[in-house]
Amino acid sequence: MNIIIINTGSSSIKFQMIAMPDQKVICSGLIDRIGLGDSNLIYDNSRTKIQEVLSIENHKAGLKKIAELLVDSTVGVIKDTSEITAVGHRVVHGGDQFSDPVIINEEVKEKVKSLFSLAPLHNPANLQGINVAEEIFDNATQVGIFDTAFFQTIPEVAHKFAIPNEISKKYGIRQYGFHGTSHKFVSERAQEFLNTKESKIITIHLGNGCSITAVKDGKSVDHSMGFGPANGLIMGTRSGDIDHSIIFYLNGLGYSLDEINDLLQKKSGMLGLTGFSDLRDIESRAEEGDRDCILALEMNAYRIKKFIGAYTAVMGGLDAIVFTAGVGENSPFLRNLVCKNMEFFGLEIDAEKNAPRSKEIRAINKDTSKAKILVIPTNEELEIAKQVFGLLN
Amino acid sequence: MNIIIINTGSSSIKFQMIAMPDQKVICSGLIDRIGLGDSNLIYDNSRTKIQEVLSIENHKAGLKKIAELLVDSTVGVIKDTSEITAVGHRVVHGGDQFSDPVIINEEVKEKVKSLFSLAPLHNPANLQGINVAEEIFDNATQVGIFDTAFFQTIPEVAHKFAIPNEISKKYGIRQYGFHGTSHKFVSERAQEFLNTKESKIITIHLGNGCSITAVKDGKSVDHSMGFGPANGLIMGTRSGDIDHSIIFYLNGLGYSLDEINDLLQKKSGMLGLTGFSDLRDIESRAEEGDRDCILALEMNAYRIKKFIGAYTAVMGGLDAIVFTAGVGENSPFLRNLVCKNMEFFGLEIDAEKNAPRSKEIRAINKDTSKAKILVIPTNEELEIAKQVFGLLN
Repeated sequence: MNIIIINTGSSSIKFQMIAMPDQKVICSGLIDRIGLGDSNLIYDNSRTKIQEVLSIENHKAGLKKIAELLVDSTVGVIKDTSEITAVGHRVVHGGDQFSDPVIINEEVKEKVKSLFSLAPLHNPANLQGINVAEEIFDNATQVGIFDTAFFQTIPEVAHKFAIPNEISKKYGIRQYGFHGTSHKFVSERAQEFLNTKESKIITIHLGNGCSITAVKDGKSVDHSMGFGPANGLIMGTRSGDIDHSIIFYLNGLGYSLDEINDLLQKKSGMLGLTGFSDLRDIESRAEEGDRDCILALEMNAYRIKKFIGAYTAVMGGLDAIVFTAGVGENSPFLRNLVCKNMEFFGLEIDAEKNAPRSKEIRAINKDTSKAKILVIPTNEELEIAKQVFGLLN
Repeated sequence: MNIIIINTGSSSIKFQMIAMPDQKVICSGLIDRIGLGDSNLIYDNSRTKIQEVLSIENHKAGLKKIAELLVDSTVGVIKDTSEITAVGHRVVHGGDQFSDPVIINEEVKEKVKSLFSLAPLHNPANLQGINVAEEIFDNATQVGIFDTAFFQTIPEVAHKFAIPNEISKKYGIRQYGFHGTSHKFVSERAQEFLNTKESKIITIHLGNGCSITAVKDGKSVDHSMGFGPANGLIMGTRSGDIDHSIIFYLNGLGYSLDEINDLLQKKSGMLGLTGFSDLRDIESRAEEGDRDCILALEMNAYRIKKFIGAYTAVMGGLDAIVFTAGVGENSPFLRNLVCKNMEFFGLEIDAEKNAPRSKEIRAINKDTSKAKILVIPTNEELEIAKQVFGLLN
C-alpha cells in the first residue's frame, strides 16, 4: 500500500511516499516559497535527486507538480496516482476533538477550521493541503493525523491553567501540546527497547522547536508546550518559559504587544542569549571559551534537567530519558550537560557511547546507570504512515 | 536592645518591637486604611490589646500615633523613644544591589528609589516608612532588610531569562525573588533541625503569596517567583506560571493588557478555579465532594510536586522539604496531597504526625522516610530583628 504523507505550511509542501507495511520510503521532497516566484523544488526517488528553481503559483500548482513527478516516465515511481491508497495529512492542531487519526470528511474539515484561532499559522495551511490533495489524489483516502493527538491523555490536573474557569472554557485555553507525532514515535521505540509497556519515560525533542513529554505506560501524562508555540524549553529563537510579568513590564516601558511577541518568538532563546540560533555555531564558540555561549548552553541544559526532575515527580519514578530530533540526536555536548550530576535520578552518561554520531537507536548510559539514556532518531513521516496504515487495516 | 520592625504598605503600617538578644516580643500592632478617614488601629503589649477606629491622615501621623502608644503612661512599654536602638525596615525590592542588611543613608535611599519601577506598589511605601521613621525615631539607627537579599546567591543560569541580553541588561529583567526573609528564616531553622549546614532543602512558603526555594548548604540556588509577583506556584488569586501565549491570545480577543493583568493577579489562582480564595473554604467544599475544589487542590499540589522534582534535580538530591506560612503551617490536607506518591524522592508523610496543629517546629515524616518533611512556623519580624542585631553588633 502506497501512502503519501503531506505536510503543508503557509508557503511550502513537504511530502514523502512510503510503501506499507514494508516501511520503505519510495520518494520524498518539498516545494517551498510558494507564490513568491522562485520556489525551490526538491524530489528524491533514492536513485535520482532533482533540485530546481521554478515558479509555483499556489499550493494546488505545487501538489500538481509533485503528482506529475510521481508518474513521470523517467523519475516517477508509480504509473498512475490511483496507485496511492491514502494521503496522510499532518495537521498541527486538533484541539480536544481528535485523539486518533481520522478519515477526513466535511465534518472533520469544519473542525480543523474551527481551530484556526488556536493555530493561525498552521491549521489554515493544513486545510488548504487537504483541499488540494482531495482534487489531485481523488482516488485516495485522505487521513488527518493531529500533532496534538498524543497529548489527549494528559490529565486535567496537568493541562489546565489556574485562570478563571469561565475564561478557559469559553476560549478553549489549556495545554494542547506540540510535536506529538515525534514524541509518540520515539516513546514507542523506547518501550520496545526497554521491552515493556509499563514504563516511565521522558522524551526530549530538541529541534527548531523544543519540547519534553512525560510518558507513563505508553501514554503522555505531561508536556512542556503548547497552548501557544513559545513556552517550556529554551529554543533557537523562542524564550520558552518566562515570568509573564515581563510582558506587562515591557509594555509599560512603551513596547507594543506585537513587538513583545516578536521579541519572545523570534529574537529570544539561544539567539537572544548568544547572537546565534544554530547550536553548532554556539557549541563551537563555547569550546573557544565564549562566555555568553557557555552560559546559554548551561541555561538550556539546566531547564531540561528541571523538567526531568518535575516529570519524575509526576510519574513517581524514571526508567529512561530519550533524546531526539536534530539537536537531541546530534549534540553529544548538550546531552552531556543535561545528564551531568543527575545520579539521583539514576542517570549516568557514558562519554564513549555518547560521542559517536549514528542514525541507530542507541543507549548511551553506563552499565551501572539505573535509568537508560537513549538517543532515538525521530521519524514523523513513518509514524504518520503507520497510523494511516493502522486506521485503514 | 529594643528593635522596632516596621513594614509599611501603601496605606498601612505593621510594627513589632522585639528585645534582643532575648528575642522577646514587647509589643506589636498595625494601622491600616491610612488616609481613608477610618483607620483601624491595633496595639498589643501582651497584657493589653487596644483596637479602635480613628482618622489617620498619612504615614507620618500613623507612626507618630504608634510612638505615642509606645511611651504612653498606661499601655506604653518604654519611657522614651530614645530607648529604641534601631528600626528595621522591611523593603521588598533590593534589586541586585543588596545581599545583606544595610544601615540606611541617603545613598541607600536613592537606590531604593531607583527600584520603584520594579516594585511600584511596595518600594515607594517602604521608602515613605523610612523617611517618617527617621523623623519620629531620630535617635535610632535605621536599617533596611530586603526581601530579595536571600536570593542574591542564585546563579545566573537559574535567575536569567532566555530573552535578548540587551533587554535583560537595559531594564534589569531577571528573577529577583520574593518572601526572602521567610525562606531564609525557615531554611536556617531546618539546618539547625538537621544539625548540618551541608544540606539540600526545599522551603515551601504557602500564604497569601506562594513561593518555593531550593536552598543548598544554606544558600538559595533557585526560586519560583519574582521578576513580578505572579509566577511560580498557584496562589489565592494569582495564576502562577502560565503559558505566556495566553496573554497575546486574550489580547487578540479584545481584552486590554490591564484587564488581562487584573485577571491573572486578582481573579485567577484558587479563586478562578473554585470561586473561593481562602483555602479553608476550598478544603471544606472538597471534603463535601465539590469537583472544582478537589481539582484546584490537586493542581496546587501537583505544581508543588513538580517544583520539588525540579529543585531536587538542581541540587542533585534532597534532605528535607519545609512547609511554612499560613497555609503551609495549617493545612495537613494540602501537605498530604503534596507528599503523596513521592517515595522516589525519599518523602514519606506520617498521617498521625501531619494531623495536629501546632506552633512548634516538627517533622511529620515516617521514621523510614529518607528525606525529612518539616513544618516550621515562619517569623519574618524575628528574622529582621536578628539581622539588625547582627549588623549592629
